[in-house]
Amino acid sequence: MDINLFDCLSPIDYRYRSRTLAAILSENGFTRAKLEVEIALISALVNRKICPPEIAAEISVACAQVTTDEVYDEEGHIGHDIRALVNCIRNKVSDAAKPYIHMTATSFDISDTANALRYRRATEDVLIPSLIELERVLVDITMRESETVQIGRTHGQHAVPITFGFAMAGYVSRLGKSIIKLKELSAEITGKFSGAVGAYNASALFFKDPEAFEEEILDHLGLNPAEHSTQIVPPESVIRLFSEITVVSGIMANLADDMRHLQRTEIGEVGEEFGKDQVGSSTMPQKRNPIGFENVKSMWKLVVGRIATLFMDQISEHQRDLTNSASARANGEIIAYVHAMAQRLTKVMKKLRVDRANLERNLAMQSGLVLAEPLYILLASLGHPDAHEKVRTLTLQAQSERKTLQDIAQADPELDPYLKQMTDHQRAIISDPSLYTGIAAAKAFAIAERWSKRLLNTY
Amino acid sequence: MDINLFDCLSPIDYRYRSRTLAAILSENGFTRAKLEVEIALISALVNRKICPPEIAAEISVACAQVTTDEVYDEEGHIGHDIRALVNCIRNKVSDAAKPYIHMTATSFDISDTANALRYRRATEDVLIPSLIELERVLVDITMRESETVQIGRTHGQHAVPITFGFAMAGYVSRLGKSIIKLKELSAEITGKFSGAVGAYNASALFFKDPEAFEEEILDHLGLNPAEHSTQIVPPESVIRLFSEITVVSGIMANLADDMRHLQRTEIGEVGEEFGKDQVGSSTMPQKRNPIGFENVKSMWKLVVGRIATLFMDQISEHQRDLTNSASARANGEIIAYVHAMAQRLTKVMKKLRVDRANLERNLAMQSGLVLAEPLYILLASLGHPDAHEKVRTLTLQAQSERKTLQDIAQADPELDPYLKQMTDHQRAIISDPSLYTGIAAAKAFAIAERWSKRLLNTY
Amino acid sequence: MDINLFDCLSPIDYRYRSRTLAAILSENGFTRAKLEVEIALISALVNRKICPPEIAAEISVACAQVTTDEVYDEEGHIGHDIRALVNCIRNKVSDAAKPYIHMTATSFDISDTANALRYRRATEDVLIPSLIELERVLVDITMRESETVQIGRTHGQHAVPITFGFAMAGYVSRLGKSIIKLKELSAEITGKFSGAVGAYNASALFFKDPEAFEEEILDHLGLNPAEHSTQIVPPESVIRLFSEITVVSGIMANLADDMRHLQRTEIGEVGEEFGKDQVGSSTMPQKRNPIGFENVKSMWKLVVGRIATLFMDQISEHQRDLTNSASARANGEIIAYVHAMAQRLTKVMKKLRVDRANLERNLAMQSGLVLAEPLYILLASLGHPDAHEKVRTLTLQAQSERKTLQDIAQADPELDPYLKQMTDHQRAIISDPSLYTGIAAAKAFAIAERWSKRLLNTY
Amino acid sequence: MDINLFDCLSPIDYRYRSRTLAAILSENGFTRAKLEVEIALISALVNRKICPPEIAAEISVACAQVTTDEVYDEEGHIGHDIRALVNCIRNKVSDAAKPYIHMTATSFDISDTANALRYRRATEDVLIPSLIELERVLVDITMRESETVQIGRTHGQHAVPITFGFAMAGYVSRLGKSIIKLKELSAEITGKFSGAVGAYNASALFFKDPEAFEEEILDHLGLNPAEHSTQIVPPESVIRLFSEITVVSGIMANLADDMRHLQRTEIGEVGEEFGKDQVGSSTMPQKRNPIGFENVKSMWKLVVGRIATLFMDQISEHQRDLTNSASARANGEIIAYVHAMAQRLTKVMKKLRVDRANLERNLAMQSGLVLAEPLYILLASLGHPDAHEKVRTLTLQAQSERKTLQDIAQADPELDPYLKQMTDHQRAIISDPSLYTGIAAAKAFAIAERWSKRLLNTY
Repeated sequence: MDINLFDCLSPIDYRYRSRTLAAILSENGFTRAKLEVEIALISALVNRKICPPEIAAEISVACAQVTTDEVYDEEGHIGHDIRALVNCIRNKVSDAAKPYIHMTATSFDISDTANALRYRRATEDVLIPSLIELERVLVDITMRESETVQIGRTHGQHAVPITFGFAMAGYVSRLGKSIIKLKELSAEITGKFSGAVGAYNASALFFKDPEAFEEEILDHLGLNPAEHSTQIVPPESVIRLFSEITVVSGIMANLADDMRHLQRTEIGEVGEEFGKDQVGSSTMPQKRNPIGFENVKSMWKLVVGRIATLFMDQISEHQRDLTNSASARANGEIIAYVHAMAQRLTKVMKKLRVDRANLERNLAMQSGLVLAEPLYILLASLGHPDAHEKVRTLTLQAQSERKTLQDIAQADPELDPYLKQMTDHQRAIISDPSLYTGIAAAKAFAIAERWSKRLLNTY
Repeated sequence: MDINLFDCLSPIDYRYRSRTLAAILSENGFTRAKLEVEIALISALVNRKICPPEIAAEISVACAQVTTDEVYDEEGHIGHDIRALVNCIRNKVSDAAKPYIHMTATSFDISDTANALRYRRATEDVLIPSLIELERVLVDITMRESETVQIGRTHGQHAVPITFGFAMAGYVSRLGKSIIKLKELSAEITGKFSGAVGAYNASALFFKDPEAFEEEILDHLGLNPAEHSTQIVPPESVIRLFSEITVVSGIMANLADDMRHLQRTEIGEVGEEFGKDQVGSSTMPQKRNPIGFENVKSMWKLVVGRIATLFMDQISEHQRDLTNSASARANGEIIAYVHAMAQRLTKVMKKLRVDRANLERNLAMQSGLVLAEPLYILLASLGHPDAHEKVRTLTLQAQSERKTLQDIAQADPELDPYLKQMTDHQRAIISDPSLYTGIAAAKAFAIAERWSKRLLNTY
Repeated sequence: MDINLFDCLSPIDYRYRSRTLAAILSENGFTRAKLEVEIALISALVNRKICPPEIAAEISVACAQVTTDEVYDEEGHIGHDIRALVNCIRNKVSDAAKPYIHMTATSFDISDTANALRYRRATEDVLIPSLIELERVLVDITMRESETVQIGRTHGQHAVPITFGFAMAGYVSRLGKSIIKLKELSAEITGKFSGAVGAYNASALFFKDPEAFEEEILDHLGLNPAEHSTQIVPPESVIRLFSEITVVSGIMANLADDMRHLQRTEIGEVGEEFGKDQVGSSTMPQKRNPIGFENVKSMWKLVVGRIATLFMDQISEHQRDLTNSASARANGEIIAYVHAMAQRLTKVMKKLRVDRANLERNLAMQSGLVLAEPLYILLASLGHPDAHEKVRTLTLQAQSERKTLQDIAQADPELDPYLKQMTDHQRAIISDPSLYTGIAAAKAFAIAERWSKRLLNTY
Repeated sequence: MDINLFDCLSPIDYRYRSRTLAAILSENGFTRAKLEVEIALISALVNRKICPPEIAAEISVACAQVTTDEVYDEEGHIGHDIRALVNCIRNKVSDAAKPYIHMTATSFDISDTANALRYRRATEDVLIPSLIELERVLVDITMRESETVQIGRTHGQHAVPITFGFAMAGYVSRLGKSIIKLKELSAEITGKFSGAVGAYNASALFFKDPEAFEEEILDHLGLNPAEHSTQIVPPESVIRLFSEITVVSGIMANLADDMRHLQRTEIGEVGEEFGKDQVGSSTMPQKRNPIGFENVKSMWKLVVGRIATLFMDQISEHQRDLTNSASARANGEIIAYVHAMAQRLTKVMKKLRVDRANLERNLAMQSGLVLAEPLYILLASLGHPDAHEKVRTLTLQAQSERKTLQDIAQADPELDPYLKQMTDHQRAIISDPSLYTGIAAAKAFAIAERWSKRLLNTY
């Protein structure tokens, strides 16, 4: 059944749609994955010489012809989704083939395994590559701006200087680590073929080694079985994967938020290149709104809400209840939103313009008050009995006399003996904020290089 | 653009779709609502004799021809959704009409007002009627089963008896109250026409009474203005409505959970009529799974997760940020899920079969131990110095001797004087659990009648 | 048992403690409230001439002597909290009094009613007054700053001007409305005295009109009964109250966030007066961190998380399960956090310093680009065929030529005929951003006055 | 300051208090951890021969004397918590020692590192051992009941049989895996000593290798540094740990829920041994309420709500904001609740009584309908053209004729040829549900043995 795209309710369908992900995570994608599992079962039966290869071929051809539309039609009659799928396959094969279809399987051997397949592929083949693409852009910015001095900010207040690349390096490191975790957790997603309650009741009717049979089926799909399953695989491996997906969305939202604020009119340290024809506002043509960053933050809020649902779905009574029938169907949306976040953020970060003039202006804003920290620390280390309090008083004096902290400090006779004991390098630093960046530049570069080697060269 | 329904990712689109709601809450519905707001603006300009009626007619015709597809195309060029909509209207009218379109409006005068319109209509025209339909079914069951004795359960343990109708009456009362609240909160949803930052900067260029002008526009749409707005209406009225929508979904989930458990094989007090061809399980043909009730519970878990997102969207910086650009788009899904819950629950409750034999069997299960409460209370009221402890000992004795509590009590010489002081009615009650139902039947009936009058006759 | 305050784990106990709230919401407060309910039951029995007044007096005296410590000791022996409380009262009275204690009551007649009492009192007697105190401060600032021009900000970007008081008026309006809602929802909190499963099984043994008896008991406590209860009152009225408490915390968090950002070093429009000895940072003595506002935002994040738990507690199986035994105990913390937010915010808002120099500097920052909106709107209204696009081009020109928009506009011959058609007032506005504030000042004042009358004079 | 325990608001303080955890996670525990970090700094200075060992000894002695009470007093004066702590130490040492205290450190070098220390210790020293204790109990039950046949349940309906031990083995496996994860994630918690904005600005004034200096300090505490930090360590490692803590709480809640339902009056397969004096209900002395299991489920609902707060705290602007000042303080409560869950669940599972009579009664309840699955599967495998539909019809016939499925099947001539082809073992299975348990017993035992070796012997 076809519908107009804009008759959809969900923005993930009509607005943030990814064709690649839809191929995996849509209902059609689910049907295809379930058919793959049914075929994997047949393949295992062939390997065990139970099902003749030509029958297997016949079933494969039949599976290729099954459409979601006809499965839904059949479900409309009999009220059961997997039985409907099985009927659709059966209707397309000879009587000789019928007994092998779905043999010893229970519905969730198929559904849960198909979902494992989908979540792994969506993560490994689509989500992670989009995150690596973002990582690549962040690595580039980090290297390019590793020495660009920027005032560091805590509590929204000027603190002491860093470099722009150093701030970016934090995201390179956090995102890189999360990608590694996603890979690990995705590989832990398991399938199952243990029957209606997990005890291999049906398959043990035929096989002495039903666990080995399960492994053979899943092996065709590149999956491992759960150590123990009921009608369903234990929910934890999926929850862990989606928790990390939520984590990575938080990293992107944090970056987006930082950029959004650095783009404030008064700060203006970064900007997004606007298209020549792009309209910022319907009535205020001068505006350059950070809508890309806002959109990323917004999707994160959706994702955070959804993880609660996954945690609630962790509880399934006895050998399973089906109180996740609707909620688990929506899991794919989470991957899709986080993928859309990665793509949007990559796009705007690629166009990110760093405004050096504003960076310098902002650094200079507080007339050296950002040097209070090194001054206090050096005084304390040189034995000043109450350095923190002394410097606090000097900063108040500098503010009321509208002088730089350097000037006030140099004019204060009490400090004279301490200043004389400082090294040249130390004296230079307390005269020029742009020198007080610690190891920001070198560390930024090293982190970018490390993750570039670790992630980008291997994918 | 058309797509195959099953290429959708979101179950709200491919599986739990409501055509009526989609007309309101889909992106096409949003476009139509925004156009209605643009037309309401023109109507207000006509009333003030600023815009000639024939121009208004021309614009109306133009608006009727605008499609979401073309708006998205235009947005693809200029990167702004409302300006794209405005351009699409402008392209369809004469130069003389152009100046009136969107006059003094800012984007969110249109979008927020359109959303207010959509949320109200979806709630009042679709959601509430579906809840009233459910209420009607619950009222019927309550009346029909008002005298059907059922063991009451607390902690999953047999407590003292009620009637099945009395349990249902609780849901009639809770659902009824929530419907009233939904009506009230829906009526509180406001629109706005106060410009880019809420101070009527633009409209005050032309009108001495821009607040009156705002009221005139919104009056065409049946909406009230917010007392104060920024670029957007204050978020609270929408949050309150969606909180109540979450509340009503919780009431339905609670009912579904109760039914689910009463349908357990061992309890068997209710059942859902199965279609003759319906399949319970793909491998266990004997099963009658409560999939309708499970589905309702599952959707509730989705809804609970989403309310967190709405609370997070409450914070918008200064005169607004757009960090709800994606998340607010998903609000409509919440209404759609709760509507689907109401429809599903109505359907299964209509088919609900109450199994009297099992009700009686379960009531009799504990051999009168459920009479421990009236026995203890009557003994205490008659001055027994330690009635609770005495009855606790009797129940242990009844269990170990496998006798009914009545027999044990009557054989206990210590209790003799107290039993003699009881009224006939009191003595009858402690001999027959089915008499110990308090005012369950009468109260159930009264509640059903009250809500029937209050809600069902007036809608 | 006494403990060192700092051996507590919960910040609500060791750091954000309110003595007034603790009297109501602590475990000692709960004990007192439960005893009040037991006494209300006795009073109703006296009114019905069942219990002699002197016995009632004896029980009252006994109740006054019960301590939580002894109740917990007794619970340690018998494993049931309310039975322990009842035993503690019984141990302090004559045998003649014993039968009246807890007569016909079930545990949750006492607990749920006691909680209703506590939530109402905490809300009405402590939380709402603290919110009104905040409202008072906001009303004052609104009036004082109603004409203080401030650049409006959307997306963190300069939009068009408002006044500082106008921005505050938005919070006056939102907070005021939420206070009204809190009052209404608090009054809807109900108690119950309907016995173990809600059907008045026990009380109907003695009374023909058990619902009237319930009303009489609750009337002593100023509470209404639920229309229908099971072992517990329906959870919705509590959820609605706590949802609104979450809403009001969001309003405060939004205000705190706005102030936090306005206090950024580069913006500097507001500041919190610092104590002479106050330390901003342990190493950066120059800093003035908005820790009060940050703290308010932080508590909001706690509150938002907790509302999910309340929604999850809405589901209780059949006539009740006790899967809220721990979670419902934590509800009081939510009120306590929101009360702490109100107090903290009141304190910092009272000290709020508005920096007029920075307000003016920021308004002037964009050299009149904020006038793009009125220019475009006036041009459009005067028939310019493509005003939005024209003004967008002018702003780009103004930026590249580093001129004011006014100068660029006046030098553009294409605009000449339109400028001539404008009124003097309109021409004035497009030359001076501080005139383009719509009705901000008047509206701010009117809102402040309205809420001052509505709320502040009546409490 | 001492308070009465029951003047606390938070149940984690007055009711679910753990002395061991309070020593780590209370505010006093936090003070001690911060002092440990200050001492680790001094030790590193000693190793670098900057601070003389005797001075270090003097500072250690001083630190041991600092109390939270005096720190709070000092904070009351100066409004900054870490500076207050530093002042308290300084006041207790000679002038010669003062310069070394807090040297080059920023507040969050101390706080974040102290929290890392606390979360690791609370997890590794208290939470994990309590989970292993639970695992031990589950392993014992699994082994003991590995062959106890139980009907498997899906959708609350009888499915096909398992063994009780097999069901338990699922929890052994899930809990075991989560313990392993907790250990891994706990070891990933990092500290920091990189100064006010993470660039080692202050320490680079003195050291050429500030990253090595950071490592030396953290090494004294058994912690690793973050690869990159700002004023704070990246939040992800803490979120990951708490996500897994939420996961393990879900596993316990799932187990508790299963037990709760198996304890239903009608099912009665398990029970908790009641103390001789224990009261089940204040008015219904016969009741045996599963309050332990309910309590575990309830705490889980608290925990799920809190994880949202942690995800919200993931976003911190630029080099940090402090909008987690209150919320992060509540993190410890999560560990405390999950620890309380583990202890409670261990206690009730130790007392768990499995009721074999009821297990057998329930298994027999459906007169062999649970054998529909093997019958259908065997028929299908033997070439019956429509086995699923055939067996579905037979079950309807069995129900209407009130016969066992076995009898109906054997009497059906259509099935005769198929029955004859079955092996003896297959024929036995379709006559006796208790034989149809697949490999449940063996698998249960194997899993218990595996985890016993993997976890229990090594801790």
